[in-house]
Formats: sequence, structure tokens, C-alpha cells
Amino acid sequence: MAKNNKNITSRDVDFAVWYNDVIKEADLIDYSSVKGSMIIRPYGYAIWENMVAVLDKMFKETGHVNVQMPMFIPESLFNIEKEHVKGFAPEVAWVTHGGDEKLEERMLVRPTSEVLFCDHYKKIIKSYRDLPLLYNQWCPIVRWEKTTRPFLRSREILWQEGHTMHSSEKEARSETLQMLDIYTKFQKDYLAIPVITGRKTEKEKFAGAEETYTVEAMMYDGVALQNGTSHYFGTGFSEAFDIKFLNKDNVLERPYQTSWGVSTRMIGGLIMVHSDDLGLVLPPKIAPIKVGIVPIGDVKSLVDNIENKLKENDISFYTDNTDKSPGFKFAEAEVKGYPLRLEIGERDLKENKITLVRRDTLEKITVKSDINEVIIKTKELLTLVQDNLYKKAEVRRNTMMHKADTLDQFEEYIKKPGFILTSWCGEEACELHVKEKYGLKSRCMPLNDDASNKPCTICGKFGKHKLYYGKQY
Amino acid sequence: MAKNNKNITSRDVDFAVWYNDVIKEADLIDYSSVKGSMIIRPYGYAIWENMVAVLDKMFKETGHVNVQMPMFIPESLFNIEKEHVKGFAPEVAWVTHGGDEKLEERMLVRPTSEVLFCDHYKKIIKSYRDLPLLYNQWCPIVRWEKTTRPFLRSREILWQEGHTMHSSEKEARSETLQMLDIYTKFQKDYLAIPVITGRKTEKEKFAGAEETYTVEAMMYDGVALQNGTSHYFGTGFSEAFDIKFLNKDNVLERPYQTSWGVSTRMIGGLIMVHSDDLGLVLPPKIAPIKVGIVPIGDVKSLVDNIENKLKENDISFYTDNTDKSPGFKFAEAEVKGYPLRLEIGERDLKENKITLVRRDTLEKITVKSDINEVIIKTKELLTLVQDNLYKKAEVRRNTMMHKADTLDQFEEYIKKPGFILTSWCGEEACELHVKEKYGLKSRCMPLNDDASNKPCTICGKFGKHKLYYGKQY
Repeated sequence: MAKNNKNITSRDVDFAVWYNDVIKEADLIDYSSVKGSMIIRPYGYAIWENMVAVLDKMFKETGHVNVQMPMFIPESLFNIEKEHVKGFAPEVAWVTHGGDEKLEERMLVRPTSEVLFCDHYKKIIKSYRDLPLLYNQWCPIVRWEKTTRPFLRSREILWQEGHTMHSSEKEARSETLQMLDIYTKFQKDYLAIPVITGRKTEKEKFAGAEETYTVEAMMYDGVALQNGTSHYFGTGFSEAFDIKFLNKDNVLERPYQTSWGVSTRMIGGLIMVHSDDLGLVLPPKIAPIKVGIVPIGDVKSLVDNIENKLKENDISFYTDNTDKSPGFKFAEAEVKGYPLRLEIGERDLKENKITLVRRDTLEKITVKSDINEVIIKTKELLTLVQDNLYKKAEVRRNTMMHKADTLDQFEEYIKKPGFILTSWCGEEACELHVKEKYGLKSRCMPLNDDASNKPCTICGKFGKHKLYYGKQY
Repeated sequence: MAKNNKNITSRDVDFAVWYNDVIKEADLIDYSSVKGSMIIRPYGYAIWENMVAVLDKMFKETGHVNVQMPMFIPESLFNIEKEHVKGFAPEVAWVTHGGDEKLEERMLVRPTSEVLFCDHYKKIIKSYRDLPLLYNQWCPIVRWEKTTRPFLRSREILWQEGHTMHSSEKEARSETLQMLDIYTKFQKDYLAIPVITGRKTEKEKFAGAEETYTVEAMMYDGVALQNGTSHYFGTGFSEAFDIKFLNKDNVLERPYQTSWGVSTRMIGGLIMVHSDDLGLVLPPKIAPIKVGIVPIGDVKSLVDNIENKLKENDISFYTDNTDKSPGFKFAEAEVKGYPLRLEIGERDLKENKITLVRRDTLEKITVKSDINEVIIKTKELLTLVQDNLYKKAEVRRNTMMHKADTLDQFEEYIKKPGFILTSWCGEEACELHVKEKYGLKSRCMPLNDDASNKPCTICGKFGKHKLYYGKQY
């Protein structure tokens, strides 16, 4: 049943080539004459639109509002927070001329907008009554990457960046974790991706943040993808930008800040977790097209009726009315990852039946050619596909979670794909050692239980934290 | 009743200052450290989000899909279509460095994306089966303006740009007019703005277009705002980019192209058409908050019930629970332009009544303090406000439409605010003469009836077209 698609390299043969093949065959992106930037084609962009719609709703339900900052940052403004500059300066694009004139001060295209938000906050925050400010922005950002890969690493990225200001540390910390929670929930419930969440080490945290929390997803090949981050800044930027508010006791205080973001990178994650050698596999809740209809022969009136019923039930579909062969259409529906395929054949109709095919298992289900039954079964199967994709990803992830109590075990697991949970003394030296000797970066300290109490896997000293290592995209 | 807001200059005293005051007092934007760019604050951005939601739906209902192109354009790509370059080169921002390295080829930040779309179309268009391509993109663009005004002229603009390719001239021309029609309908039905639509003269059309159609709105002060354009390109870009398709007869042909766009400029138009000396006035169909609730005294349980009922009916509201005085809250609701204000006072409740205040007329309407009656009346009034705003704008516009059959009349009407409809020989000399002598640019030739047959108002020769002139933003 599961013939290979001849245009797609098997993911077990060459995962990187497979990834590019799937993206190309499913028409998600095109390369452009702009080096390092991609064109997101309609089908790829529709996935992003679905992600944006769901997340934006989740953000608004938790009290956030959208704003729009300029895309340029004057150099002097960028230079205000020193850690932040160090982190981003090597990878920014500089605008130096407007028309024929050289600018008095050059500007960078935003790689992230902390400084722009702070510049604004300084003007609008006066009293505790102005807080909290729960702002978010959907926008493109630019990071001048040397090597790029579609969705994973690009010179231009579509993302959202939340930036919030609070009157207390407690509230700001709770916001940081709330947003991490929303990202986790979104990836679990919509993208069907199980994640591990945790805190980044000092070495790996965001430039300028006090703490960085991360959502780490594991790809089919056992490599980690950082699929969202949430930062607690404390009052670092407030001090650098001299932002103050009058608290309830009429005393001037520094507000506490957070920022958090996810990007089109999640589309890369979606592909690398669920898709297979036949092409894309999309979870129904995020798929732009949930049902691909393939009519075979003269079945127009039934197809019309089913289309109307799907519309009524708000189930998106695409009917392939081209003059291609049924086999070609089946393959196309598989490449595009429609969660369900509805085959409606003239011959089958004589026997009063219709065939439904699940994209996740390729299982064929035959139902009576009764419209109501078709819709009931469609809904039922869409739920099953969504749940099954999550379970499959979770089972796979679990088989690739290794726990290393000793250095020997650690060195053994490094040869295998996946995450390795270790005990860590908390010293950067051990983390650096792992990076230099084994080429592995730490992922995070698990969120709710990062106390270790076992000897550090590397140096044998008292272990303060549990720490995940893993290869990363 | 209509006391002035002391922070807002009267629009009859100084329209330009009034405009800035309203924008500032209603918290629509903030100025930033980035010269010429603005920050769109939550309330301003919510208006844009509503515009985007409605338009995006209209675009999709007419078969368009969204894509995302890179924001940069390499200089060599930009230089391919000569007319286009001439039009835009003086006002582009140039990126010359990535990190510390000078780029081999400098790039501009897109001022519009025709060349990026063409570069992509060249790769994906092969046969008539690939056409039409009905693409749209929501994105920020950059034009290096010398003088800027919030929403009207900014170095950075949020907009949508549709770019379509067709297999026949007829289809492309019909697409151009269809989109002009959608813009007209949107502005009429949602923004409550009456517009005149027409074709630009050779001199005023878009750089590279064969024909440019425009939606021209008239502001309160009688000055025109170009509030949307739709261009027919013919095969100009197809030729410059060597784009070809195999037609049904297996012959290579050039596809026919259109582009069309509206931007955050429409928010400026919305303000300058409807708002008054008390602040913003927003048509209910585009207002982020339709009802402003002002509780006076202990009326919490009734307010809760009304809030729930408004939610049920999908009517957005904001309840002002601050500790400010009722008078202050009324003024605030007026500044923000909530179409309706609901005053719920302890004293009134004893008499079983509630007061509704229309923002457009400031009329007070008393209803029984029965929740269902309040909701029914609210819905009824929202419809009345929407309709009345359109009618008021239309009546005002009509009083400022002048028809000049002679040069004397023309010179008379120039002293008055508004549009002047003239007869035009079709020669650029006469248009230039009007620009140089009177400082007026032509707006457009009316869409459905541009034949004149009267002598040209300027030179007296045979008049080929009707032509509108008017001052412009």
C-alpha cells in the first residue's frame, strides 16, 4: 500500500534531503533570488495562518493585545543594553542609505524588538495603574544567518514576539511560565507534538534575559528543535532604559519584564515530527485542507452534496477535478498531507459505498454512500488521526529519552539519537566540556523537577540540576 | 451638550493640528526614536486588525490566497523593469551590510513587491493550467519619505498587495476592476466612506502600470485621500521578466498581470471623514469597541448581566471601572469614538431606566432597564449610527463636488474645498498647466462615464474625458 513517492528520498536514507524533498513536493516554499530568504507559498502560508489564528486567540484570551513597532532600530538605541547587543550584533542587517542619501545614523532591521518596546514603555509607563502592559506583535524579523534551511534557519522569519511589563517580580515570572504553558498546550493540542519544557542554562539563555524557558520538541531523527521560548528579564532592560513607575505607596520602582516568541520554525517541526516518505502528514487541527476528495468517473451530484455538507460542518476540503489519473491524485493527496482522503468512485457507488483513507496509517475505511454517515465517519476519523499522531510522536520520543547516570552511559547514549538526561553540578565548565568534547549543547533543565542530588555526570561533584543534552537544529 | 475636549484643537480652527490631537488623545499611535516611523498602539492596531479580517475574507471569497515574499530586493532584480525603478528608486531604504560584512550586492527593503512576485512567477508558470494565480500578501513596506504624517505618509506602512497573473487580457482587466469594486464596497459598507472611483491619467498612474484605477475619498476639509489603487499591467512585467505560458493551442504567450493594494492609510481616512472636536468617531462595523459602558454607583449586578448578554450577541464592549469621575469617563468614551455609550446610574435604576448615548449625534436615548430591551435598542442604534455616518459623509461630499465648464468657474472653485469635475482634452500639457499654475493634481477620470464631449476647461479644444481635480493628502 505504502509505495514510495519517487520524488521523495526516504527519511531513513537521508533525513536532510527528505526534509527538503517534502517541502518542495508539497509546494510549501520556493527559493528566491534573495539569498537566504524563502518564499512561503500559499499552502505553506495557510498552515502559518492557522497557527496564527489559534495562538492569537489564546493570547487574547489571556489579556494580551497586539501592537506594531517600527522594523528599524537606530544603532544608538540598539546599543543601550550591552548583553543584548553582544548577542545580536554579529547577525543583523544594516540599512545605511535612504534613497541617494547616506543616513546620519545607520539602522538595523529588527532581529527582535526588546529595545523598541522599552523605548515606548519609557514614555507610557508612569504609575502602577498603567501596568501590566501585555503587548504582542506579529511581524517579520531578520537575522543574517550564514547557512539557512527552510523554516528552520532563515534570514527572514515570520514570528510573534510578546513583550510585557509588570509591577511585581512574581507577576512577571508567572507571565513567563503562563506563556510557556500556552506554547506547550498549542503544540500538544494542535500540532500533536509532545515537548519537554525547561529552563536554559546561563550559557544558553537569551541575550539580556535573567531566565530563558524553552519548549523543546524532538524530531523523527532524534534531533531537538527549540520550538518556542519565554524569557524573564527582571529589571535589566528597565534599568538600561531608565523605566520607572510610581507604585501604590507612591515610590518609584522599576517594572519587571518578559518576552516570548514562536515562529514559522514550528512548520519545520511539524514536518520533521509527523511526515513520512509519501510526503507531508498534517494534524487535522492545523491542516489547511482536512479532506481531499478524489472523484472517479461520473459522481458529480454526490460530490456536490458531500461538499455542501462539509461546508455546513466547517470542514475544509479540496476536490481534485483535474484530468489526472486517480493514482496520481491519490499520491498528490498524500504529498499534501490531507488528513483524510475521500475516494468516490462510480463503481463503488453502484455498491453503495465510499472509501475513506487515513493519511496517518493509510488505512482504508469503507462506509455506506450516505451523506450523513460520511460526515459522521469523517469527523470521527479526523479526531482519531489527530490523537494518533500525538501518540505516535510521544511513543517515538519516549524511546529516544535516555538517562545517563555515569559518564560511560553518557558516552554510550551519545551514539544514539535523542535526548540524554544527566545530573549537572551547575558549573559552566562541565557544560563547555560536553560541547567541546562531544559537540552537544545543553537543551534545558526540566521545568517542574530540576533538582538532581546525584553526582554530576561529567565531574562527579554534587549534582544540583537535572540537565538535558541533545543535538539540535 | 457638545462641550469641546480641551486637549483637542477644533477641526475648523486647524485641521492638521486637530488630526494629530485626535490620534494622540485616542491613543492610536506613538512617535518613536525611529524617525519617520510610528508605533501603532493597541487601540489603533485593533482598528487595522478589523480591517484586515474583513478584507481578507473578501479576498478569499473571490478566490485569492495569501503568500509571503522576502522583504528585501537585490538591486539587480529591482532594476529589471525600467519605469518601475524610475518611480521608486528615490525613496527606498538600502541594506548594505550583514553583520560586519559588506554585501556583494546591496538590497532594498521592498517599497512594493511586483519584481519579487514576477521572479517567482517566472519559475512556477508553465502552462495555462497554472493560471490564474491570485496571490495576495499582508506585510510592511518601506518608502523613504522626507515628510511624514501618522497613517497618511510614513516611512513604514502596513498594507496588502495583491498580485495576479492571467491567461487573457480580458480576465486581467476584469480582476483589476473587481478589486477596485471590493475596495469601494469595503469603504462604503464598513468604513462608511463614500468614494469616487476612476482611472488615473498617464501622468499619475503607478510606475510600470498600463492603467491605474483609484478609490478617492474626500476628507472633512475637502481634501482628497487616495484610499486604494488597482493596477492593470498588461504584459509589461511579463516581458521584462520573460514570463511565458503554453496556451491551450500549445503556443507560448505572455501572461497578463494586475496588482492592487490598500494600507493603514485607510485609518487616516476614517479619522478625517468621521471624527469631530470631541475625538474619534468610529463606524460600528469597524470599531474595536462598539459599546462603552459607564457604571455610576453600585450597579454591578446589572452591568454583569448586560456584559454577558453583549458577549452572547457578539457585541464588543469596554466597561470603565476606573475610579475616575463619570464626566471624565464620558469624555474618554467620546475621545475613543465608541459608537454607543451606555450610562448605568444607581439613581436612574431606581426609576427603571438606562441611558444610551450615540457618538455620532450625541443624542441621549432612555430605555427601560430591562436587559433584553437594552440589547435590542443597542443593536438598532448601532445600525442607525453606521447608516448615519455614511449619509453624513455623503451629503458633505456632495456639497463639495463642483462642476466647472469654464476656466472662470474652475478658478472660482479652486478657492473652495472639494473636487472639481472638468472636461479634459487628454493632453498632458493641460494637466501640467493646472499643476503648475494652481498646484492641483488630477484625481481621476470617473469610472463608468469618462466621456466628456465638452470643450477642455483649460485649452478649449475638444474634451475627450471628464477629469476630477482636487487637493490631496
